[in-house]
Amino acid sequence: MKQYNFNAGPSILPQEVIKQTADAVIDFEGHGLSILEISHRAKYFQPVMDEAEALMKELLNIPDGYRVIFLGGGASLQFCMLPYNLLEHKAAYLNTGVWAKKALKEAKAFGEAVEVASSADANYTFIPTDYEIPQDADYFHVTTNNTIYGTELSDEKLQQIYDKLGKVTLVADMSSDILSRPIDVSKYGIIYGGAQKNLAPAGVTFVIVREDLLGKVSRHIPTMLDYRTHIEGGSMFNTPPVLPVYTAVLTLRWLKNLGGLEAIEKRNIAKAELLYKAIDESKMFVGTAKKEDRSRMNVPFVLKEEYKELEAEFLKFAADHGMVGVKGHRSVGGFRASIYNAMDLEGVQALVDCMKEFEALHA
Amino acid sequence: MKQYNFNAGPSILPQEVIKQTADAVIDFEGHGLSILEISHRAKYFQPVMDEAEALMKELLNIPDGYRVIFLGGGASLQFCMLPYNLLEHKAAYLNTGVWAKKALKEAKAFGEAVEVASSADANYTFIPTDYEIPQDADYFHVTTNNTIYGTELSDEKLQQIYDKLGKVTLVADMSSDILSRPIDVSKYGIIYGGAQKNLAPAGVTFVIVREDLLGKVSRHIPTMLDYRTHIEGGSMFNTPPVLPVYTAVLTLRWLKNLGGLEAIEKRNIAKAELLYKAIDESKMFVGTAKKEDRSRMNVPFVLKEEYKELEAEFLKFAADHGMVGVKGHRSVGGFRASIYNAMDLEGVQALVDCMKEFEALHA
Repeated sequence: MKQYNFNAGPSILPQEVIKQTADAVIDFEGHGLSILEISHRAKYFQPVMDEAEALMKELLNIPDGYRVIFLGGGASLQFCMLPYNLLEHKAAYLNTGVWAKKALKEAKAFGEAVEVASSADANYTFIPTDYEIPQDADYFHVTTNNTIYGTELSDEKLQQIYDKLGKVTLVADMSSDILSRPIDVSKYGIIYGGAQKNLAPAGVTFVIVREDLLGKVSRHIPTMLDYRTHIEGGSMFNTPPVLPVYTAVLTLRWLKNLGGLEAIEKRNIAKAELLYKAIDESKMFVGTAKKEDRSRMNVPFVLKEEYKELEAEFLKFAADHGMVGVKGHRSVGGFRASIYNAMDLEGVQALVDCMKEFEALHA
Repeated sequence: MKQYNFNAGPSILPQEVIKQTADAVIDFEGHGLSILEISHRAKYFQPVMDEAEALMKELLNIPDGYRVIFLGGGASLQFCMLPYNLLEHKAAYLNTGVWAKKALKEAKAFGEAVEVASSADANYTFIPTDYEIPQDADYFHVTTNNTIYGTELSDEKLQQIYDKLGKVTLVADMSSDILSRPIDVSKYGIIYGGAQKNLAPAGVTFVIVREDLLGKVSRHIPTMLDYRTHIEGGSMFNTPPVLPVYTAVLTLRWLKNLGGLEAIEKRNIAKAELLYKAIDESKMFVGTAKKEDRSRMNVPFVLKEEYKELEAEFLKFAADHGMVGVKGHRSVGGFRASIYNAMDLEGVQALVDCMKEFEALHA
């Protein structure tokens, strides 16, 4: 039976990327050695790291003055690296979910860290807009896509943020929507994220950083937590996660061949519209996020009250039909379909068909 | 042509582990999904993480009271995590190489960090023994194997350290000799290392930690830098490096099947004796490390003065005979053969034959 991978992360990668990675585990680009056992100092790995940065810059149209580095430790490590490097007096955070809240918590150890707005009381079903950005903040932090709650900063809401930034540096955790749409990188000081959604297998973190922001805080920064270390070392100050970086390059090549971010955005819009339409037309299912803040990447939905007792049955039905990873996060309940870049329209159609079939049987 | 991988790290892994990893990239244990795209929260990944810890405990005979955690960021990140978690007033370091020196440097930002002895003036060709361990130190840090210089703390020198520890906690960076021989873990508070030598591909770091040492420093520790976070989260507080952890499990199974650490130590002794004997009997080559401190893992050697001009020629000759990664580190020059667990006696014999053939042609 064909399986469709709706896991929230680590998550689906393009089939050709998986196949190419498997080939490289046996023999890396014809060198007769596995990607698992090559030295990162080997002359044939440097081009991989260079290509990773170059393709990120090309696809995201990153302006001069920025570097892209690849690190270990996950986005969670960035929650403290960021204030270590940028927070001198004050930082402001938009609290749109558990991950945003965790980022804010880490910042508090480094200076004043204020929450400008929060949708916690509504279980993060929407993105707040009614706030000002304190102009004395060293940076303002947002999470552009909230994986658990299925909310995302739309282009319109991003524009609203750009408009009220003033002279404050914008920082974004884009773990779960990086490379899913074009983004105006010039508006950001730092963009970071775990790569295990739209880019790579687990084990590598990307950081896009405007170089002129660094070196301005007065505190001592441990070498490995200083972005400058990794910029100077070209992401190879110490041994990088070789295979995850290589797979990231394969994914970036796939994305470029597909037509880049404009093309993938169109596909992502079509997928999201198909799934949300099915949810909105359903007698049985209902979405949990506020419509205007709906994510194109993560689609949480639940059973309406009168069908609640069918939850376990739908999960089993979906699994029996090849749907993998559709159980909702415990904070929201119900179901969640993560439809990242590598998920194609056929996969979303299969899920929609499965939902309709179940509904025909039970509603 | 058969290739022999003498890279210092990332480095050789057992062929069956490489093959099994490639299989898992296509289909992870028959679940129909790639190891690259499975959720770390999937019910079939938890047993992998559990087995990683269990096999480390079994093979290293780790006593109760210790936990084994798997992190990202490399051993270099441990250089600051360690003092973050353990250094309240003072730490003592044995400076036996560049990595030991880097570890010491990071500690200095957290308290008093003293170098008890150093062989830097002799380009780290030996392990100093003439020092005392300050009894008011929170811990004493050693690097058991020095990858670049080819020195290793022998069982005898380790015993000397155990004997003079007093009440001081011993901490060791075992990046490049972990699992190469039995070790008395009960003598250590923390043992850590990058896993990309004897255990896994690049991207995962192991930390063996005695739990009762934690929570005693007065400083605030960022969540991700606190060992307790990862102990409580079972190495899954955030997304772990899934594939490197899985490959580590495969390597640990391979090692167990081979007979564990007693068996691999015998093999490692035989390999090292074979190579050092060839070096010592050579008219052309000479070892750089002091004999009593010679590493079983990394064997640096150079051409004698009268043959110095043949360096590039030997490197080409070796490459033409399938020897990969034998160029010496720039700090030592000449050549280095890293003969980790996965290198078998046949590979070392091939290198020895290659050296003898070259010598017959030129000496």
